[in-house]
Amino acid sequence: LKTYFDCYPCFLRQALHAAKLSGANEGQTEAILRQTLELMQSLPAAATPPEIGHQVHQIVRTQVGAHDPYHQVKEKSTRQSLALYPKLKELVRKSGDPLRLAIRLSIAGNILDFGVSNQPVDLWQTVEKVIKQPFSIDDVGALKDKLQNVEQVLYLADNAGETVFDRVLIEELPVPVLYAVKEAPILNDATREDALAAGLDACATIITTGAQAMGVIMPLVSADFRRQFDQAALVIAKGQANYETLSEAGEKIFCLLQAKCEVIAADLDVPVGSIVVRRSTSR
Amino acid sequence: LKTYFDCYPCFLRQALHAAKLSGANEGQTEAILRQTLELMQSLPAAATPPEIGHQVHQIVRTQVGAHDPYHQVKEKSTRQSLALYPKLKELVRKSGDPLRLAIRLSIAGNILDFGVSNQPVDLWQTVEKVIKQPFSIDDVGALKDKLQNVEQVLYLADNAGETVFDRVLIEELPVPVLYAVKEAPILNDATREDALAAGLDACATIITTGAQAMGVIMPLVSADFRRQFDQAALVIAKGQANYETLSEAGEKIFCLLQAKCEVIAADLDVPVGSIVVRRSTSR
Repeated sequence: LKTYFDCYPCFLRQALHAAKLSGANEGQTEAILRQTLELMQSLPAAATPPEIGHQVHQIVRTQVGAHDPYHQVKEKSTRQSLALYPKLKELVRKSGDPLRLAIRLSIAGNILDFGVSNQPVDLWQTVEKVIKQPFSIDDVGALKDKLQNVEQVLYLADNAGETVFDRVLIEELPVPVLYAVKEAPILNDATREDALAAGLDACATIITTGAQAMGVIMPLVSADFRRQFDQAALVIAKGQANYETLSEAGEKIFCLLQAKCEVIAADLDVPVGSIVVRRSTSR
Repeated sequence: LKTYFDCYPCFLRQALHAAKLSGANEGQTEAILRQTLELMQSLPAAATPPEIGHQVHQIVRTQVGAHDPYHQVKEKSTRQSLALYPKLKELVRKSGDPLRLAIRLSIAGNILDFGVSNQPVDLWQTVEKVIKQPFSIDDVGALKDKLQNVEQVLYLADNAGETVFDRVLIEELPVPVLYAVKEAPILNDATREDALAAGLDACATIITTGAQAMGVIMPLVSADFRRQFDQAALVIAKGQANYETLSEAGEKIFCLLQAKCEVIAADLDVPVGSIVVRRSTSR
């Protein structure tokens, strides 16, 4: 997905939010703002939003020197999500189609996204909404078929806290899972530490993309990750940034997400707030 | 109120929204975006948000040549508000304190603000919320006292549609009213045409600020308006832009508004969504 003009205000908002969480003083915030404005004046037309977001967060890190501004936010998200884990498991246990329900739940967890909004959310309210909501794009059947014919899944994580919802889905998958998190902190994306805190090591092998960047930006990922990605027969990709970077990267990829902003919703041709399981196309 | 860093994403969003409503093509939108980014890199520290907004909308007008991008939006807001007029009047009639209720209603109408959000609102739902909501800043008593001791009120309009709610308040005021709208279209602010469509000529003398700008930016208003403003013994100022430009312009001014964005809410030291009747201070 290319960067649309409507993404620009969002980059600025993200820069300011990360600056605030990093404890930037007024001078640092002004420098961050100024450099972000400069960056936006020279964007390559083909850049995806995560590629720009990556640079925005780099500006904040360089200015403030904060290693992980979203650390507390991520810990809190994980804690809140873990508190729901028993209830999520019970929903799955009671369901007539546990795998389909677990897919829904993993998408419900995608609401924990500070890239799209700074607002706190009522997690359980989101769960109750999403388990009843029709899929606006429903490639669940194709995903289920594919799951019967692979020996392993590469599962691309998105945000901390959402990890707990991923765990619920992974525990329903019939094959082993490689769970790929980010190499180092970026926004509220899950790192190895966040995945461990959510208990992912009990149900999956945790690997990293090798990059401190949102989504999967090929020039930034490690050779190891690139090999895993190329060899994978099935990739489950969570959230907007993975969709933005992988929506045309091949039919072995299934993007599970909520369409939380107007740009993504328009690109998917669904209303804002939709839930989506979409098989990627080939470019 | 000075322009805070948090206003910057909002300026960009406003530029893009106005560009879209103006029918800007991709090239024009890019030029608008680029010029807005340049503008933001050279903002004087003391500028108020309406002063910057004024320049943003000037950029859009110059690029696209559209005279009034918000024309349709304004007509629709006025139509929707007029449909509620009989119900609003009945609420006032049934009230034990009609003036206080009419003040609340005029603040409820302030939700019709496309400067803060592009989202459509449920007007009646807002009315029902606001008539029960406690004031977060309550200078209603001082305003009522003042109304007993003046011969005329200068009433500064904000948005089209909100005009209908202003009419309900003006019809409860004990003295004649000068109703000041904008000289020419800016955002969805009311012009003379919008005031006439809302029936304001039946209860007030319509004048204009002489400026195609939000709020009251002194270097931009006409000498006529400046005289009326200086001579006024009591000014009722509606909405955020009037608050942003007049919050420290003297105790004869009472700002009636909803605190719709975080910057304004923080400046007022109230939660977002608060309703406020606040007497301005002297600088």
